[in-house]
Amino acid sequence: MRRLSAVTLFVAGAVATVLAAAPAASSWLDSYRAPAARLIGAALADRHAWQRLAELTDTFGNRLAGSRALAEMLAWAQAEMRKDGLERVRAEKVMVPHWVRGAEHAEIVEPGPSELAMLGLGNSIGTPPEGIQAEAVVVGSFDELEALGRAHVAGRIVVYNVPYTGYGETVRYRSSGASRAAALGAVGMLLRSVGQPGLRTPHTGALNYSDDAPRIPAAAIAFEDAERLQRIQDRGTRLVVRLTMGARMLPDAESANVVAEIVGREHPEEVVVLGGHSDSWDVGTGATDDGGGIVASWEAVRLMKALGLTPRRTIRVVLFVNEENGLRGGLAYRDQHAAELANHLLMIETDGGVFRPKGFGFTGSDAARAILKEIGTLLQGIDAVAIGAGGGGADIGPSVTAGRVPSMSLDVDGALYFTIHHTAADTIERIEPGDIARCVAALAVMSYVVADMPQRLPR
Amino acid sequence: MRRLSAVTLFVAGAVATVLAAAPAASSWLDSYRAPAARLIGAALADRHAWQRLAELTDTFGNRLAGSRALAEMLAWAQAEMRKDGLERVRAEKVMVPHWVRGAEHAEIVEPGPSELAMLGLGNSIGTPPEGIQAEAVVVGSFDELEALGRAHVAGRIVVYNVPYTGYGETVRYRSSGASRAAALGAVGMLLRSVGQPGLRTPHTGALNYSDDAPRIPAAAIAFEDAERLQRIQDRGTRLVVRLTMGARMLPDAESANVVAEIVGREHPEEVVVLGGHSDSWDVGTGATDDGGGIVASWEAVRLMKALGLTPRRTIRVVLFVNEENGLRGGLAYRDQHAAELANHLLMIETDGGVFRPKGFGFTGSDAARAILKEIGTLLQGIDAVAIGAGGGGADIGPSVTAGRVPSMSLDVDGALYFTIHHTAADTIERIEPGDIARCVAALAVMSYVVADMPQRLPR
Repeated sequence: MRRLSAVTLFVAGAVATVLAAAPAASSWLDSYRAPAARLIGAALADRHAWQRLAELTDTFGNRLAGSRALAEMLAWAQAEMRKDGLERVRAEKVMVPHWVRGAEHAEIVEPGPSELAMLGLGNSIGTPPEGIQAEAVVVGSFDELEALGRAHVAGRIVVYNVPYTGYGETVRYRSSGASRAAALGAVGMLLRSVGQPGLRTPHTGALNYSDDAPRIPAAAIAFEDAERLQRIQDRGTRLVVRLTMGARMLPDAESANVVAEIVGREHPEEVVVLGGHSDSWDVGTGATDDGGGIVASWEAVRLMKALGLTPRRTIRVVLFVNEENGLRGGLAYRDQHAAELANHLLMIETDGGVFRPKGFGFTGSDAARAILKEIGTLLQGIDAVAIGAGGGGADIGPSVTAGRVPSMSLDVDGALYFTIHHTAADTIERIEPGDIARCVAALAVMSYVVADMPQRLPR
Repeated sequence: MRRLSAVTLFVAGAVATVLAAAPAASSWLDSYRAPAARLIGAALADRHAWQRLAELTDTFGNRLAGSRALAEMLAWAQAEMRKDGLERVRAEKVMVPHWVRGAEHAEIVEPGPSELAMLGLGNSIGTPPEGIQAEAVVVGSFDELEALGRAHVAGRIVVYNVPYTGYGETVRYRSSGASRAAALGAVGMLLRSVGQPGLRTPHTGALNYSDDAPRIPAAAIAFEDAERLQRIQDRGTRLVVRLTMGARMLPDAESANVVAEIVGREHPEEVVVLGGHSDSWDVGTGATDDGGGIVASWEAVRLMKALGLTPRRTIRVVLFVNEENGLRGGLAYRDQHAAELANHLLMIETDGGVFRPKGFGFTGSDAARAILKEIGTLLQGIDAVAIGAGGGGADIGPSVTAGRVPSMSLDVDGALYFTIHHTAADTIERIEPGDIARCVAALAVMSYVVADMPQRLPR
């Protein structure tokens, strides 16, 4: 109550709006005010979540599927989860693709030589050891590429200089740009990074080769480098680029989804899943994508355990593996838990960063949404009451689809996300301790109440 | 006049202050209102300065002393200056140090392996090909280093994790940190980058080895990496780092200060010098440090020539070489022009970026300052009237000291400078066309009036 009063004083207008919009108080919800306050208080009382994320990212660094760092981190996580008193801690085996970057380099040869700030795209093939050298042709869209046609593309390195407008709009150049260029005879592809402008900061990420075009090596370059190539071309100057990549795909490696639970006291067979992905790209330390998601999910469950809050139904935290370049973890979870999905009441994914939380996105029935909005009112004190449209995530997606499971995603302030996404700058310095603590609080309250409330969350 | 009226409408308060502070209108100054307006108008009428800087940085990239890129850029600049109609265009020979970075890499070995974002420090020695591997010890100051003493430093790699407070305060760790650590037996040095926090952005720069300590390899790391090493040490975890650097110093190379002039119509022997430095660090494209300085200085003189404004005295633009790691250009200019320095009326250096100009810093007599303040009022329309304390620069410093020459530096908005200083992010994207145009206008008006006014600028 005191917490609410303090907030009322500070943001009286906003809170008044929230209260006006909230349903009439439910007696069932009243009984969750005290545990919600305990969970919020415990999350905000210290910096445990931030410190755990710092320890994870400092100790293991980045964690691409198949890497030793990922394997070591997953072993550490299981040991720590056991120390936390979590139950049924286990690794559920998943075979994952094992792409390695190798040494890589790109430069302007003419006019030059001058180095380009680059990162090879995940799943790309490599080049011969001496690299590939070719005239470059800069295009601003697929339409421009097609208009040029094979006569002006064959034998060249295609550079997509497409300004970032939004992830969905721009990422298709990363996904399919190599194959679209190769279909016209291009020998390599460079991509203006898919993300907001940084400080000469290339963004990696996966490409997908289509079956009807040759596979050509592909790399992202910083926006500054794409603009430089554009200006050189616009001056009518001959532009020659060299790309050298040691990238290669090794045989699939054994890895795992790491799972831990608090077993439900009345309906242990009914499950609420919280999770994120354990793997990251092989640059930076994967703090936002998605160390923060797995740590916040894990911390939410740890706090319940520490406070002795055992819900009626099972709470399960899942560290899905290989979200970045294969989604094998999400697919394996769906297959390994197929028989259980009908009893999955809710799956919550956190993979948009652990910045200041606003609430959740939700995909499911109106009846379920009404209940979740009621639960959301318990997060007024941390200003995270929103239950928006569209909740889900890549890792939970296969299970959600297969089992028609209601799904949520933690919704946070997204201002910084696509500045650091898939870059060397994805480190713990981007995350405020108070923000990840609020994320933990939101996840803990939402998942605890859904797992414990008298009624089963309707489909 | 119309320009002044427009400004008065927009920033009436500020202009009123300026006018109140300005001396009573001088008849000698009135005759410069028309040429000043022409110079300002020509500078702001197009993007020529920005485009020239883009062409320079796009075509030649970075330009460390001794590099082929610098030699090619200096040849291009002379050819372009001749095309501009500048007079007595020439290269004045200077022998410069020739440091090359070579391949380099740093990583945390334990707990790890995990890559560090690094840049070797200029003039550093290299490591053996296999690198050096040692326990690291993180310190926050020289005092902490000394308190640890030889027992805890010998055989280790010292990491200076000193937060950036200001360049002058923090750069001494870059300059002398390696030798201070080596004096206690350290085998290598890593430095938290001297600059404002970026996006995993290391800042290079020169170190100076002292004669009384062994020379050890030294590199800058991003602030995020320094913080990571600090946290690992603070947890009591064993910390082992490997540093591999191919850096080496080659024999001195022949280079030059590039000089061009408009010869004075009455006192050709009296000279006003405008300049910056042609070399840059070997990362980024040296757009701010100091491509912008040389282009803005050059453009100021080009505009006078294009407008047919030949001053009474000679205007000379100098592209000084090797400011970054030797200052040989500034020293050579002093020596080669020793007999002329008594007739150097003013030297103006631009090496703080070509961001929005505020005016100039000035070092010289009160009598000279009073005149320069009058001239500054001609820059009211671009809000660059300030004549602050302390004007000078590294390149003009030797001549200013030897000849007791009055000296100025262009003073600009400095918010971004130490975010990109000596980094890969020092590219043309950081510079607004309208800002560099205003810098050109300020330099042109100030230097033209000093070179043309009836009275000789007093010492």
